[in-house]
Amino acid sequence: MSRLLIIGCGGVAGVAIHKCCQNSDVFTEICIASRTKSKCDAIKAKLENTTKTVITTAQVNADSKDELVALINSYKPDAVLNLALPYQDLTIMDACLETKTDYIDTANYEPEDTTDPEWKAVYEKRCKDLGFTAYFDYSWQWAYKEKFEKAGITALLGTGFDPGVTSVFTAYALKHYFDEIHYIDILDCNGGDHGYPFATNFNPEINLREVSANGSYWEDGKWIETKPMEIKRVYNFDGVGEKDMYLLHHEEIESLAKNIPNVKRIRFFMTFGQSYLTHMQCLENVGMLSTEPVMYEGREIVPIQFLKALLPDPASLGPRTKGKTNIGCIFTGVKDGKEKTIYIYNMCDHQECYKEVGSQAVSYTTGVPAMIGASLVLSGQWKKPGVYNVEEFDPDPYMEALNKFGLPWVVDENPVTVE
Amino acid sequence: MSRLLIIGCGGVAGVAIHKCCQNSDVFTEICIASRTKSKCDAIKAKLENTTKTVITTAQVNADSKDELVALINSYKPDAVLNLALPYQDLTIMDACLETKTDYIDTANYEPEDTTDPEWKAVYEKRCKDLGFTAYFDYSWQWAYKEKFEKAGITALLGTGFDPGVTSVFTAYALKHYFDEIHYIDILDCNGGDHGYPFATNFNPEINLREVSANGSYWEDGKWIETKPMEIKRVYNFDGVGEKDMYLLHHEEIESLAKNIPNVKRIRFFMTFGQSYLTHMQCLENVGMLSTEPVMYEGREIVPIQFLKALLPDPASLGPRTKGKTNIGCIFTGVKDGKEKTIYIYNMCDHQECYKEVGSQAVSYTTGVPAMIGASLVLSGQWKKPGVYNVEEFDPDPYMEALNKFGLPWVVDENPVTVE
Repeated sequence: MSRLLIIGCGGVAGVAIHKCCQNSDVFTEICIASRTKSKCDAIKAKLENTTKTVITTAQVNADSKDELVALINSYKPDAVLNLALPYQDLTIMDACLETKTDYIDTANYEPEDTTDPEWKAVYEKRCKDLGFTAYFDYSWQWAYKEKFEKAGITALLGTGFDPGVTSVFTAYALKHYFDEIHYIDILDCNGGDHGYPFATNFNPEINLREVSANGSYWEDGKWIETKPMEIKRVYNFDGVGEKDMYLLHHEEIESLAKNIPNVKRIRFFMTFGQSYLTHMQCLENVGMLSTEPVMYEGREIVPIQFLKALLPDPASLGPRTKGKTNIGCIFTGVKDGKEKTIYIYNMCDHQECYKEVGSQAVSYTTGVPAMIGASLVLSGQWKKPGVYNVEEFDPDPYMEALNKFGLPWVVDENPVTVE
Repeated sequence: MSRLLIIGCGGVAGVAIHKCCQNSDVFTEICIASRTKSKCDAIKAKLENTTKTVITTAQVNADSKDELVALINSYKPDAVLNLALPYQDLTIMDACLETKTDYIDTANYEPEDTTDPEWKAVYEKRCKDLGFTAYFDYSWQWAYKEKFEKAGITALLGTGFDPGVTSVFTAYALKHYFDEIHYIDILDCNGGDHGYPFATNFNPEINLREVSANGSYWEDGKWIETKPMEIKRVYNFDGVGEKDMYLLHHEEIESLAKNIPNVKRIRFFMTFGQSYLTHMQCLENVGMLSTEPVMYEGREIVPIQFLKALLPDPASLGPRTKGKTNIGCIFTGVKDGKEKTIYIYNMCDHQECYKEVGSQAVSYTTGVPAMIGASLVLSGQWKKPGVYNVEEFDPDPYMEALNKFGLPWVVDENPVTVE
């Protein structure tokens, strides 16, 4: 018997809402709130006759703490699941603090406008302090730990797939397969083909940042920074086949480095096709990826926003994307004095996801873990005052829920490792 | 003692005006007219103390026959040199007919909006009748022949470099080196490097059309159409080095096929770098080369126009472009019963052009021949009622003027041919 407020109504939220409705024993009531209430109403209309979960909807501006507090006070949820924009994490955390409500999210906070000189200065100092190009990092949210402890409420950060499931895989491996984990390689492969020469699954600004930012990995207690796309490997993924993958900075490296004792190295690799990279490069060369407005016919236009308007709507990719994602971690460590390596991964089929919830695997693999994280907080299994990443809790109920709710995983005890 | 009205004030016009001012014996007075009179005034201010040519300026809308007729009647020029947009050729020819004034241009007429259904139908019928994808063709202007004959005035079409000088090279080769020319390969190489990852010399719409249109060549009395960029060759150009070049349709093939007796094959090749082609392909894939407006933030925006605003201003390429152009023709034919091959070409250095007239070689190689064509009409050497292409007149004074005015040519009597 619990009541969840879900903020946000995009692709990931759509999946999470579907999944909450498949788990009505935990989610007896949900309220879907976003800036555009009609989107919430549309999902409600689609689902309400298929589930025991009672669905309500609300309009809210997630940039306004006051509006959020008013909504929480009126709906009185047991927890808030934040599936809005990463820019809004801190505002929503503030509202949760004020109303003493548990908080769950999937993506870490980042400042919205890092071109503003004041922000830029703060930002650059953070990067320097952290020792890597901190396009995203947990420090903003970790700083809330004491406040959440004092308020007696839980914040569960980053319960998507990566970060999220990959960190739960790590906790699970450490609990059941290793005495110590020394090497972690997180491999994120999207083998989906949407049939367009070029399209992006999410916001092109985020895709751009992935390929144009410096990479970094954790080794021997410090960050090693690489040039953008400097480290390339080829890996043969189960269910997908051979793909090029590149080392990127990724947020779970930061929390795993803190939470996994004795870890020597953590790397993150993501697959990109050559054609995708060529398109990104050409678009960047002509200025189409710029986030700085240019004057055009007497009006400011932000090139990357205009590009976004030209590209296929990410939502339209769902019905046409074929193939699978394969995301997981290769762990090398020691058990009973012997070195061993295992690979835990999930394969997810784009078309099956679409058939089930109307979204392809990229949203599905984030939305399902969001629901699972929320269910564990609501059920009290993952409830503890403070601010936590997923690897800090017992992984077993989460791993069980992954199998039950559409993201079954495999443990390969003899995997090919990454050089 | 003659008076020329120059319509247009872009890069090519700037060169032609500079060159008229170097040839004040012929061009005693010129009037520069364009939609934006301030541009004309700026060139006038730059040149008037360096030349005996008397320069005046005027504002005119070249889409309006009435405005053109009024300007011609007031300025009373001996000829009109049309360096405006190809869309405006027929309007300017109509104004010349009405005022009985000689007419000279560098680029053949094309309809402005071929997406309009009515135009489209006309256009498609023309393509079918002509037997090739007629993105540009002479038929619209050749249809004026009788009217110009009756009016007793001359229209000289296409006196740029290609078309223009390449056709004069052909007439010259036929006059002095051959009894019959059987094979003509026109080779247009731009070995310039502006140092940008991607930029276009002229209008990107025209550049796009060059690479996305079907190619075609003339063989055995008919057009052979190819897929876009289907035929690729490599050629080692004097002054430039080895370059990839691609077979394109080009307008002078049409007039040379008509005017050069017994010619068996005429082809046109243009060099393109792989990086340029990759950028064009990627931009086309994402829709940035589209000429169809899209709705963006409540307003129509034409993607290719917005791209144009992002790309470096073609005028800014001048000071930074290094290297040479090499444009010419390889002729194979028969003289005194023996087969022979010669190659006539011009090399033009971007930086030297810029130093001389403030424009790089792409504008220079078009603007100089425009001035030469106008000078031959004004001097009476190329004056004959009707509508003519440059190869229909005696090439000798033109060839002499090329040497004199900055486009010296070379005859290679033992060239490498193109497979």
